[in-house]
Amino acid sequence: GIGKAEMVKGDWIKKGAVVIDCGFSVYYIVMLLCMTVHFLFNSNSDIVISRSCVPKPIDRLAREVGLLSDEVELYGKTKAKVQLHIIKRLQKQPDGKYVVVTGITPTPLGEGKSTTTIGLVQALGAHMKLNVFACVRQPSQGPTFGIKGGAAGGGYSQVIPMEEFNLHLTGDIHAITAANNLVAAAIDARIFHESTQSDKALYNRLVPLSGEQRKFSPIQINRLKKLGIEKTDPSALTDEEITRFARLDIDPSSITWQRVLDTNDRFLRKITIGQSPTEKGYTREAQFDITVASEIMAVLALTSSLEDMRQRLAKMVVATSCSGEPITTEDLGVSGALTVLMKDAIKPNLMQTLEGTPVFVHAGPFANIAHGNSSILADKIALRLVGPEGFVVTEAGFGADIGMEKFFNIKCRYSGLRPHVVVLVATVRALKMHGGGPTVTAGMPLPKEYVEENLELLEKGCSNMRKQIENAQHFGVPVVVAVNAFKTDTEAELDLICDMAKAAGAFDAVRCFHWAEGGAGAVALGQAVQRACEAPSNFKFLYDLDLPIADKIRIIAQKIYGADDIQLLPDAQHKVELYTKQGFGSLPICMAKTHLSLSHEADKKGVPRGFILPIRDIRASVGAGFLYPLVGTMPTIPGLPTRPCFYDIDLDPETDQVNGLF
Amino acid sequence: GIGKAEMVKGDWIKKGAVVIDCGFSVYYIVMLLCMTVHFLFNSNSDIVISRSCVPKPIDRLAREVGLLSDEVELYGKTKAKVQLHIIKRLQKQPDGKYVVVTGITPTPLGEGKSTTTIGLVQALGAHMKLNVFACVRQPSQGPTFGIKGGAAGGGYSQVIPMEEFNLHLTGDIHAITAANNLVAAAIDARIFHESTQSDKALYNRLVPLSGEQRKFSPIQINRLKKLGIEKTDPSALTDEEITRFARLDIDPSSITWQRVLDTNDRFLRKITIGQSPTEKGYTREAQFDITVASEIMAVLALTSSLEDMRQRLAKMVVATSCSGEPITTEDLGVSGALTVLMKDAIKPNLMQTLEGTPVFVHAGPFANIAHGNSSILADKIALRLVGPEGFVVTEAGFGADIGMEKFFNIKCRYSGLRPHVVVLVATVRALKMHGGGPTVTAGMPLPKEYVEENLELLEKGCSNMRKQIENAQHFGVPVVVAVNAFKTDTEAELDLICDMAKAAGAFDAVRCFHWAEGGAGAVALGQAVQRACEAPSNFKFLYDLDLPIADKIRIIAQKIYGADDIQLLPDAQHKVELYTKQGFGSLPICMAKTHLSLSHEADKKGVPRGFILPIRDIRASVGAGFLYPLVGTMPTIPGLPTRPCFYDIDLDPETDQVNGLF
Repeated sequence: GIGKAEMVKGDWIKKGAVVIDCGFSVYYIVMLLCMTVHFLFNSNSDIVISRSCVPKPIDRLAREVGLLSDEVELYGKTKAKVQLHIIKRLQKQPDGKYVVVTGITPTPLGEGKSTTTIGLVQALGAHMKLNVFACVRQPSQGPTFGIKGGAAGGGYSQVIPMEEFNLHLTGDIHAITAANNLVAAAIDARIFHESTQSDKALYNRLVPLSGEQRKFSPIQINRLKKLGIEKTDPSALTDEEITRFARLDIDPSSITWQRVLDTNDRFLRKITIGQSPTEKGYTREAQFDITVASEIMAVLALTSSLEDMRQRLAKMVVATSCSGEPITTEDLGVSGALTVLMKDAIKPNLMQTLEGTPVFVHAGPFANIAHGNSSILADKIALRLVGPEGFVVTEAGFGADIGMEKFFNIKCRYSGLRPHVVVLVATVRALKMHGGGPTVTAGMPLPKEYVEENLELLEKGCSNMRKQIENAQHFGVPVVVAVNAFKTDTEAELDLICDMAKAAGAFDAVRCFHWAEGGAGAVALGQAVQRACEAPSNFKFLYDLDLPIADKIRIIAQKIYGADDIQLLPDAQHKVELYTKQGFGSLPICMAKTHLSLSHEADKKGVPRGFILPIRDIRASVGAGFLYPLVGTMPTIPGLPTRPCFYDIDLDPETDQVNGLF
Repeated sequence: GIGKAEMVKGDWIKKGAVVIDCGFSVYYIVMLLCMTVHFLFNSNSDIVISRSCVPKPIDRLAREVGLLSDEVELYGKTKAKVQLHIIKRLQKQPDGKYVVVTGITPTPLGEGKSTTTIGLVQALGAHMKLNVFACVRQPSQGPTFGIKGGAAGGGYSQVIPMEEFNLHLTGDIHAITAANNLVAAAIDARIFHESTQSDKALYNRLVPLSGEQRKFSPIQINRLKKLGIEKTDPSALTDEEITRFARLDIDPSSITWQRVLDTNDRFLRKITIGQSPTEKGYTREAQFDITVASEIMAVLALTSSLEDMRQRLAKMVVATSCSGEPITTEDLGVSGALTVLMKDAIKPNLMQTLEGTPVFVHAGPFANIAHGNSSILADKIALRLVGPEGFVVTEAGFGADIGMEKFFNIKCRYSGLRPHVVVLVATVRALKMHGGGPTVTAGMPLPKEYVEENLELLEKGCSNMRKQIENAQHFGVPVVVAVNAFKTDTEAELDLICDMAKAAGAFDAVRCFHWAEGGAGAVALGQAVQRACEAPSNFKFLYDLDLPIADKIRIIAQKIYGADDIQLLPDAQHKVELYTKQGFGSLPICMAKTHLSLSHEADKKGVPRGFILPIRDIRASVGAGFLYPLVGTMPTIPGLPTRPCFYDIDLDPETDQVNGLF
């Protein structure tokens, strides 16, 4: 076994804490030695740093954080899944402090939210000796081999082993690919079979003879109930009921369910399917999205239990029938299979930081057409595990106008959890851009404005930070600004940001050096966060779910983005009517907007004013539980550049080590 | 830890054997009790049987078979991966007995090869107390949700837990999907970028400035070597060398690399890609295959080490350049990334049978366009683990004319392993079909000829068995016929098959009842196999690799299929010339032919004579290491029927058990 259950119920938090302390103290000395060596060669790439420290066995970490052996499923030596029955064991335990990390509007390079999340937990856990958990998203594998590289944090603030984190992990994203594409195959196959068979033939195949008689499967009984047919004997249906039951009558032009791959394959953005003679001329235009954009990923992130996931997976709407009814995965008969495919993915994945503190890596929904936050389940389990004096630090994707707003209005609404503190990551680089600095482009050298002191640009650009602080304050939660320092930043620049942040109403603002120094560089941030958790908090949502769809969108656009108003274009107007009629009007809103500006135009930096936010269309993720208005066109599958990252990636056959991930 | 290394080097086989014995004796009593209960209700479905016995913890099984704790990576409680460094530890150990299970030409329902494989190891291991391993293929997930259902064996001869076996397992197939599709994305992206950039721009992007200078990646150095350019300084290349290096100049019509999904999605059989405006009008026809048809799956099955896999993955030919050169994954720069994606998939997966004996589940290449056999690595490790008195039973897909022929001529050629015995599975049902019985169709009731005694049909149909025995004898290996008995078979029928088999030169022929009785029903088979292993064996290949391509194909067609000759159609003739010129002429041959007849026509049963085998085209799997002639049209991605299996599949939210897999 992976370690006998040494801990007694009721005693686990204290015991867990003690184990962490002593576990950490030994481990920490090793870490310091190994990090000291590396500080001498500070140009090391992330993967060199990642593999320079041997991770502790994951079963040991599991024991340290108070998990019992029957609650843990090992996946090799450095990853484990946590079984959901732990929630029952811990149901009476009080939660720890809940911290969400967000950021100002970033440059295309990113401003270090993930790195700050990891640096902060390393500070709180390994240096301040508090129980702590980081909860982060699993990255898509597409960008790992494309432009971006890995997403495990950076420098001396990373999740390790970073190659496990960035590649298959425990297969959750692969399970989503399989589940998503089973739905897609079922949709087209069903349309095909309906088009080539009579009602009676269709019915006889759907409810086949088993021995002497026909029998509905439980999933078919669910569909009958939805149709208002209260019969369980297949021979009792009238002809009209048979037709209603057997024909989904999907309008092909209404299909919103796309196939997915976790690959940057731009040639799948728009395709024509069904061109083999075996499909008898039934062709249609379709597309692939990146897997993390699948609604199933959003379901995984928002679900609260296996039973709840089963219900959400069954409610997903894939198309509309010719008569205007929403067609669900339950209607297709595939909802149970989806649950089976996702039964392991629902369990959070345990890993560790470079300094040996625990991390849950779980779910990674796209941050524009979905809500961009890691899973509710991981946060909930972590909050119980750390205990009332402990800290759970979770990260929201993109800037505060997107990821944080969705964190509050969608994730917290479904989870019932209330954060104690918002950590807002700011950088000199991004603020200078907002102050009017030249364009920042990935892969190009930074213009000199960004590597030399320029207080004027910086001060002007602080407007964006001010607005994002205000955005957090709309929700009544204290804000700590974390200034993620780069080596080209000057003292005066860093001071200026801190002063401006405090003047804008931040609870505190501190400089952080966790990229270069690990947790030691984020202790001041940890202390500020600890103090902020004691500050008064008065959480409220931004909008009421019962408001009309357009009103909810308008509130986000005006209060968070600073728009004068919204404009619903015809498709969007039509969807408002359709979804209201279909009964989806009271879902929360998940804006699909560029993250590079508070407005809908990526090149408008700072705090754009006087704009009308155009809503091109609206889509529904009924299973996940939100409507997503499309503001402009969102690419949903990235492409590969001329020289993708994969040119540098290889396995060293001598050592079995992965080279070239960064 | 998962169990301290209690065993000392050199002592492991004996120690391992002892542990197996005592482990089994306790376990076996529990098993007998639990099976006794179930024999009373013999109509149980496979999944009911599968979950009726609690599997032993996989770390315990790993210890029982002599694996050390640092050689095992647990994947939950019922699956583990075995690390390849075990091969070094066991390099001086003698191999066990090597048994391959194959079959007569089957009906579309299958004749129970997998079930016999599992029943045989249960007999040898749990009843005859010998060290034993079954080596089986991982099934594709597509058919699990389509028509066929699971593939874990059946009745009381199964791999458990069957839902783990049939679903994600440890993610190997998912890794192949990811790796395969990265290559596909790289091909189209490269063609696109080459078509939109000058040579110089392309070169500057492929070999970018890093600081002050440009540097080739190791993969790029490999391409330079292939081009005969012995330079390592990017600035030293001439303009002509730059063009040759930077332009792969792929002929889009020559692309043989397809995208894959492990889903039965018929609408992806033929598609048009690149229709988004971002691809600027570069569209082409393409297709998806089922993942197990990917060449990467064949590489996984045929590789002997991580280093060898790296080389095979680099040699895969994806297309031809406009000037006729083969374009490889190494030319695309993606070979290292493929190796990284496959670094865990290369480790065999340990599971167990219903009677607690060990099973390796590893690789599952398509049995027509690939070679349809589980991995060489699993067989090799298992042969060392069982020791010289132990048995490894491995299964070859389809009938003996396909799976067994490829097992010998491809798998054994690459592995260097030589089997001691061929077990040929025969059924009354299939032999009656070969004798002229009515058509057998999946999903339809069996005609009465198959459920009533009919010695005449049966005797006539034994011609197929005789031919398949002869096919095995071409390789000089003794044959034991396993008659997989159904409850409708009569004594006289079973006797007749055994008599006919022995008359045809089989070493022995025995009836088996492992489906209904577990290993106890296959003890007679186990004893026959044990005796046959002592019989003289004089292994030889069917053809020499140095023969011309057409001659090798002709030898298989004439000697194995009974054809008069072959006919190379124009495409095939062209490929013979192309591959010979490109230097691939000495690869072994992997025939892509229907498994439902010895000939190329599925409805010709028995032993067809007087036919010319048409070769429509030939393809090359250069990385896996074979040429595959296409005999007729092979569907490479299945479809979903009107009522797919998934209608019955669901998770019980109370018990977390999977319902409806069978």
